[in-house]
Amino acid sequence: MTMKQITLRSRPVGSPEPGDFALIETPLPTIGEDQILVRTLWLSLDPFMRLMLDEKPFGMAPEMAVPIGAPMPGSIVGEVIETKSAAYAVGDLIEVRASWSEYVAVSTATPGLRKVCVPAGVSPSTTVGALGMPGQTAYAGMVKVGRVAAGETVVISAAAGAVGTTAGQIGKILGARVIGIAGGPDKCAAVKAVGFDDCLDYRDPDFASKLAAAVPEGIDVYFENVGGDVTRGVLPLMKYGGRIPMCGFISLYGEGEESAGPDQLPWLLRMMMFKGLEMRAFTGAGVGGAEALEKLGQWAAEGKLKPVETRIEGGIAHAPLAFSGIFGPNRALGKLVLKVAEPV
Amino acid sequence: MTMKQITLRSRPVGSPEPGDFALIETPLPTIGEDQILVRTLWLSLDPFMRLMLDEKPFGMAPEMAVPIGAPMPGSIVGEVIETKSAAYAVGDLIEVRASWSEYVAVSTATPGLRKVCVPAGVSPSTTVGALGMPGQTAYAGMVKVGRVAAGETVVISAAAGAVGTTAGQIGKILGARVIGIAGGPDKCAAVKAVGFDDCLDYRDPDFASKLAAAVPEGIDVYFENVGGDVTRGVLPLMKYGGRIPMCGFISLYGEGEESAGPDQLPWLLRMMMFKGLEMRAFTGAGVGGAEALEKLGQWAAEGKLKPVETRIEGGIAHAPLAFSGIFGPNRALGKLVLKVAEPV
Repeated sequence: MTMKQITLRSRPVGSPEPGDFALIETPLPTIGEDQILVRTLWLSLDPFMRLMLDEKPFGMAPEMAVPIGAPMPGSIVGEVIETKSAAYAVGDLIEVRASWSEYVAVSTATPGLRKVCVPAGVSPSTTVGALGMPGQTAYAGMVKVGRVAAGETVVISAAAGAVGTTAGQIGKILGARVIGIAGGPDKCAAVKAVGFDDCLDYRDPDFASKLAAAVPEGIDVYFENVGGDVTRGVLPLMKYGGRIPMCGFISLYGEGEESAGPDQLPWLLRMMMFKGLEMRAFTGAGVGGAEALEKLGQWAAEGKLKPVETRIEGGIAHAPLAFSGIFGPNRALGKLVLKVAEPV
Repeated sequence: MTMKQITLRSRPVGSPEPGDFALIETPLPTIGEDQILVRTLWLSLDPFMRLMLDEKPFGMAPEMAVPIGAPMPGSIVGEVIETKSAAYAVGDLIEVRASWSEYVAVSTATPGLRKVCVPAGVSPSTTVGALGMPGQTAYAGMVKVGRVAAGETVVISAAAGAVGTTAGQIGKILGARVIGIAGGPDKCAAVKAVGFDDCLDYRDPDFASKLAAAVPEGIDVYFENVGGDVTRGVLPLMKYGGRIPMCGFISLYGEGEESAGPDQLPWLLRMMMFKGLEMRAFTGAGVGGAEALEKLGQWAAEGKLKPVETRIEGGIAHAPLAFSGIFGPNRALGKLVLKVAEPV
């Protein structure tokens, strides 16, 4: 019996293209002692995965690089269909870091393997979204690193993304005024519908002046997801002593270590200096941890947090196109998940 | 009766030169109610003053720019020689932000005006050094922002400077292993004599590998005074979750907002991201505050902290040359003060 799987065909130059990946037919994995066979229901597609497609992934151990011809790594939500572990029963839903495959064999000792636990009425796919790693990231950035307080002004870039849509809702739960930044009027309208107080279009030629008008007293916390021109527009509006939780830099993921000049590093350092800014990079799992998952689940159960997802249908074969779309101008609202199969 | 004063003749391009300043003879100021006339004994010469010599001082209010022809601003330690205030007596020693002048008239309402209070045997000039603003900066960076703990490894750039020599001694008081970075073997020897565990010469062609060998377990805290190539050498050696108190960037003070490419900003952001770094800019007065002055005075009285100063003789006329020297390769060890006059 065979299954479909996506492998890396060639290393992307800049943003990934569907042609960088290959769809193969391969035998179904078999399982040994303390393993489970899992049928993939949902595949998570995340911007940071781009980094592992370089031969030398910047800042990561070299073995994190996906070898050419190897299956693409990715988090999945799946259903146990065969078990050789007393801890997992057939029919259990689990989340695990696995691959872009219709079926995966998982050792029960795999770090991060967990059973799906979502409130009634919430899709299991949110286990890789607002109630999973992207949610932890939003929580860590807003609560632990950003230390957002009631009455403060928070600006969130990539507001329409998986992290951004969750971070904005957390900001409102914390009592802050929350301004999003997103690309295009439709995206901004969607961000406002999620609950943000306002949203500004970074493609608008008057972006900088409109942002300044939207934060007359300055910005207490800037949740950084983007880098580049957006950051350049935001930093001059920070209050003295402002905080910048740094989640990621989607605008830079396809670039090398150095970009064409001019060198903007002196600008950043001076801006930090004269505004007494604090920037801290973090990961959701490391900083948000179990506390984040608990709080997010509680807010979702109370109806205060509504996970925002875009679900793509069509099975594993659509993964390359869906993943490449993250880096284009029309990326999905909220967490992007690919529906691989229906539960049995 | 006249006095000597230094004014700004022309705006420096890059590092300041003595010819950018003028020595003038001008009438002694007279004082009104609640003012004191002060005879300057010591003039403080600090790198950050370079920033106010630009027409539009980056990140500061435009009125912070020193106008062409105006007296150069600077902190002084002086002796009250005439008083129209009940709070100040003739003979009192004070510190105040004033100008490069032999005499200054000071309103007693001037923010930051304070009486000199140093332990017995310590020079009053340290009131603008290790027991003043540079000391507050060192304290803020090591204790409040860097949160240096016993057993940690701390690297301090511009280790031979006013802030660096104080920060290094604070690091030893806190029980940390302290590595300095300075320019040239003589400067490094002097830094080690101050109490640093080691000091590396950034001009050494093998600087990066020697630094790596000196911190086999990585760096917990990097006290940033420099920017540029030194920062580029240090950041890859930071431990995950390391802290970077940012005091200033002497290597950038003569540069415009943007420098020639390549753009090193993406490099910095990725490095921060993958090492989960925290960078925070701060000022000594704002973050160190009164707590810093109290602690520094106590350590000095106990003999644990020995202020490091270079004293230049020769009166106010030497200020332009002494100030320009800060930006050259052979700048002074510790805090640079110009002796303007002997106390009466």
